Amino acid sequence: MSVAPEAKRIKTNTSKATDFLRGICEIVVSKATAGVDPEEPVIRLQSPEELKAKIDLELSASAGSYEELLETAAKCMDYSVKTSHPHFFNQLFAETEPAAIGGELLTAVANTSMYTYEVAPVFAVMEDLVLARMRASLGWTQGDGIFCPGGSISNMYGVNLARHHFCPEIKTKGNAAAGQLVGFYSAQAHYSIRKGFSFLGLGSENLIVVPCDEHGRMVVDELDKAIAKAKEEGKKPFYINTTAATTVLGAYDDYEAIADVAEKHGCWMHIDGAWGASVILSNTHKTLMKGCERANSVSWNPHKMMGIPLQCSAFLVQTPDVLMQAHCANAAYLFQKDKLNAHLDTGDKAVQCGRKVDVLKLWMAWKFLGDTGFEARIDHAFNTAAALRANILARPASFRLVASPESVCTNVCFWFLPPSVRGEGAPAEGSDEWRKKVHAAPVVVKQKAQEQGAFMVGFQSIVLANDPSPPNFFRMISIGPNVHPEDMIWLLDQIETLGADC
Amino acid sequence: MSVAPEAKRIKTNTSKATDFLRGICEIVVSKATAGVDPEEPVIRLQSPEELKAKIDLELSASAGSYEELLETAAKCMDYSVKTSHPHFFNQLFAETEPAAIGGELLTAVANTSMYTYEVAPVFAVMEDLVLARMRASLGWTQGDGIFCPGGSISNMYGVNLARHHFCPEIKTKGNAAAGQLVGFYSAQAHYSIRKGFSFLGLGSENLIVVPCDEHGRMVVDELDKAIAKAKEEGKKPFYINTTAATTVLGAYDDYEAIADVAEKHGCWMHIDGAWGASVILSNTHKTLMKGCERANSVSWNPHKMMGIPLQCSAFLVQTPDVLMQAHCANAAYLFQKDKLNAHLDTGDKAVQCGRKVDVLKLWMAWKFLGDTGFEARIDHAFNTAAALRANILARPASFRLVASPESVCTNVCFWFLPPSVRGEGAPAEGSDEWRKKVHAAPVVVKQKAQEQGAFMVGFQSIVLANDPSPPNFFRMISIGPNVHPEDMIWLLDQIETLGADC
Ligand SMILES: Cc1ncc(COP(=O)(O)O)c(C=O)c1O
Ligand SMILES: Cc1ncc(COP(=O)(O)O)c(C=O)c1O
Repeated sequence: MSVAPEAKRIKTNTSKATDFLRGICEIVVSKATAGVDPEEPVIRLQSPEELKAKIDLELSASAGSYEELLETAAKCMDYSVKTSHPHFFNQLFAETEPAAIGGELLTAVANTSMYTYEVAPVFAVMEDLVLARMRASLGWTQGDGIFCPGGSISNMYGVNLARHHFCPEIKTKGNAAAGQLVGFYSAQAHYSIRKGFSFLGLGSENLIVVPCDEHGRMVVDELDKAIAKAKEEGKKPFYINTTAATTVLGAYDDYEAIADVAEKHGCWMHIDGAWGASVILSNTHKTLMKGCERANSVSWNPHKMMGIPLQCSAFLVQTPDVLMQAHCANAAYLFQKDKLNAHLDTGDKAVQCGRKVDVLKLWMAWKFLGDTGFEARIDHAFNTAAALRANILARPASFRLVASPESVCTNVCFWFLPPSVRGEGAPAEGSDEWRKKVHAAPVVVKQKAQEQGAFMVGFQSIVLANDPSPPNFFRMISIGPNVHPEDMIWLLDQIETLGADC
Repeated sequence: MSVAPEAKRIKTNTSKATDFLRGICEIVVSKATAGVDPEEPVIRLQSPEELKAKIDLELSASAGSYEELLETAAKCMDYSVKTSHPHFFNQLFAETEPAAIGGELLTAVANTSMYTYEVAPVFAVMEDLVLARMRASLGWTQGDGIFCPGGSISNMYGVNLARHHFCPEIKTKGNAAAGQLVGFYSAQAHYSIRKGFSFLGLGSENLIVVPCDEHGRMVVDELDKAIAKAKEEGKKPFYINTTAATTVLGAYDDYEAIADVAEKHGCWMHIDGAWGASVILSNTHKTLMKGCERANSVSWNPHKMMGIPLQCSAFLVQTPDVLMQAHCANAAYLFQKDKLNAHLDTGDKAVQCGRKVDVLKLWMAWKFLGDTGFEARIDHAFNTAAALRANILARPASFRLVASPESVCTNVCFWFLPPSVRGEGAPAEGSDEWRKKVHAAPVVVKQKAQEQGAFMVGFQSIVLANDPSPPNFFRMISIGPNVHPEDMIWLLDQIETLGADC
């Protein structure tokens, strides 16, 4: 192959680029494995102004140098939150698996899109295999699936497929082709379903809220009643969203009972398992997913409990063809029948065109850990959560569980009862004064924890079965294999220390 | 801070994990800088069965080892397409900037989500700054923006904001609140707009096609007529999609003239600049974007012409508040007013919840290259495309340009006239026989090129102004700074060689 003269081939600064990338890799390797030093702060809290003063973020017309860039990049990392830190409990993602980090690094240099076999041969075969493995773990023997940019988009795929299944003409004619479609979700369901009903032109008011019990589980009779009522009002029920571990309380709905109601009314049942579907890989905890084999579709985010770097979110459907039928557009420039292996082109199953390779990092973690490795990781997280609950129950003067742990994930929600509501002269339990002080405590504790970089944990006030607007309560999420029961004792001690004058 | 006993702190296989990640980094650094060796095959073509035989892709119950994983991962990379190779012309993305690769590697270990300042302080400030920089380059003095998972989703944000601007009640009541909404796009526009009209429940048939001229540019009078006709039919025109470099021909629409029509009819004008908006950074070529200062919204993918690793797609809007108004859901668990710097939380501007950090890699490339560096990269791509056109015009017996290069990006579309349509006894130009042979040639040439790993270039047959179903033609995309005019001569020679018996 006669090619351009070699002289032009050599990139001007390859050696400089290589040194730069070696420097980046030093940071990468140290960050990826050193995230377990609890003495290191979780965050070096700065205001936006302080960040702009400390890091040269401004862009300029003239070129910089690799040396300066490496220095500035290192500062960006220093002032970023260490989300793999054993005291990062703030979100539903935490410590990642090194094998998966390796996959994400390779994905960056592979730099291709998933839409055709032609440009992603290995990853197309790999995705097909991994999605089939995930469907099998749910007890399904057939179906289809795809990786989406996050659980919200996965959930919207569920709404869209339910809509297409109910009335295929909507794809060409619009929602008007089907009268007033209505869906159902629980009071504890994730807000992405509501965003989906707005984005898909169905309207958030056509997503009917079904109340939950005190564990955060959808009350199935209320669902049945709500569907019947909607039918009487001439509306068209088509979709029921259930949740496999709600975002705050971690509750699992009763999929068997809800599947019966769905079948009775001809509705599509989706399980939003973005957070909690991973428990299916644990022989001890998979019973929480009982009935998932009857779901029409499931969303499952390995980037949460399975320690895969963001983003890694699978959308799985039990009917084989509906994903392609709902989303295809047969763009002639991209999908040609006369190309090699065109039958393995996944692009037309997505609403995206270009689609990131999110499967390699998951496959590498699964290859390294095996099923047993994921099981051990998940069981460890449950044990740590159980230890925290036990410690909370052992310190009733200062802490109180929000919901008793029945069919719940590794979420532990609890109130901190600050000194100002204990002992003599304290306001009566449940009084406005009492609620105000309990409500304010987490704000103070969290700010101090952030200022010291000690730990990061979420707090919120959301609707509960017995209290529409309860005082703020902490939501501790246990995920990381490097978080141990002793850390839970430390956390409670820290909250008491930082909340000493609340 | 008393923490868990140190013994528990040490991750069992940290040293093994560190060695593994060092091995991964060796692959990463070599791939990221060695992508310029033209002797190396672009692809080692395999069937799915061959891949499964050569790479141990199967997952198992039991754990593997880091050593085995590193070996298998290296094989996955060997059989993956080298999209930074100087002879990879297949898609609208190609050779990436090492500075941006560095950013994507750091993003993997930073592993956080963009939804709140709390978990992404540096990146929240950085995204705000970069998006403002991009709006300024379009000539805008205000507005908002966000990074989306690809141009298709960015384009759907444009449709959704146009819909919200036209009828805000749709967010709660659904599309029914606004009668029959209709949008307009050109015959050369990207299919993601059609997928958007289906996904958003508007219906693909309510997206009206406007014909193009022979350069692939929307015919503005036809747009005006189509809107007037829709109004007569009682429909509600609300959205006009224009394209800044169409996917195949690379054409830029006339944004000034179309903005006049949009204003006249009260329609939102979106510019789909996923591929071609980057030219705004070149003083020579920015005139192609003339009129973009009048657009309501623009989508712009730095992961295409600017060499940023997938995915990096900005959605920009000129009205400051409509993005938040259209998408917010005020989820209490995530967005609390009483948290630090809550005003910098971007999460509620997205339809996603978790959102990947796609800004760091772009910021690092911009920091290293400066405006001048991106300008040089873009001008180089235009020069290489011009060289290819000149060479095609100089070889009329074998090649023919599909459209003359008026207001066009670095796309070069051309027919290859195989030997069987040249010389004595050749079928008459334009006859069915002639068209059949021209149509078949690229399929043969491409397959051979893939089998040899010589180069990868796209071909297709799409609607043209003067031919509704033309014979297949090649689409050569010039992006890479390491692709030179000599490579274009080599490419034409290769096509002739591989097509010698067509
Ligand atoms: C003009 C145009 N718009 C939008 C897109 C979609 O961009 P993405 O592939 O990032 O979804 C493309 C992709 O090729 C395109 O060429
Ligand atoms: C139950 C549930 N569903 C969906 C989502 C959305 O997932 P993502 O953040 O990946 O969009 C979340 C995120 O926290 C969640 O907890």
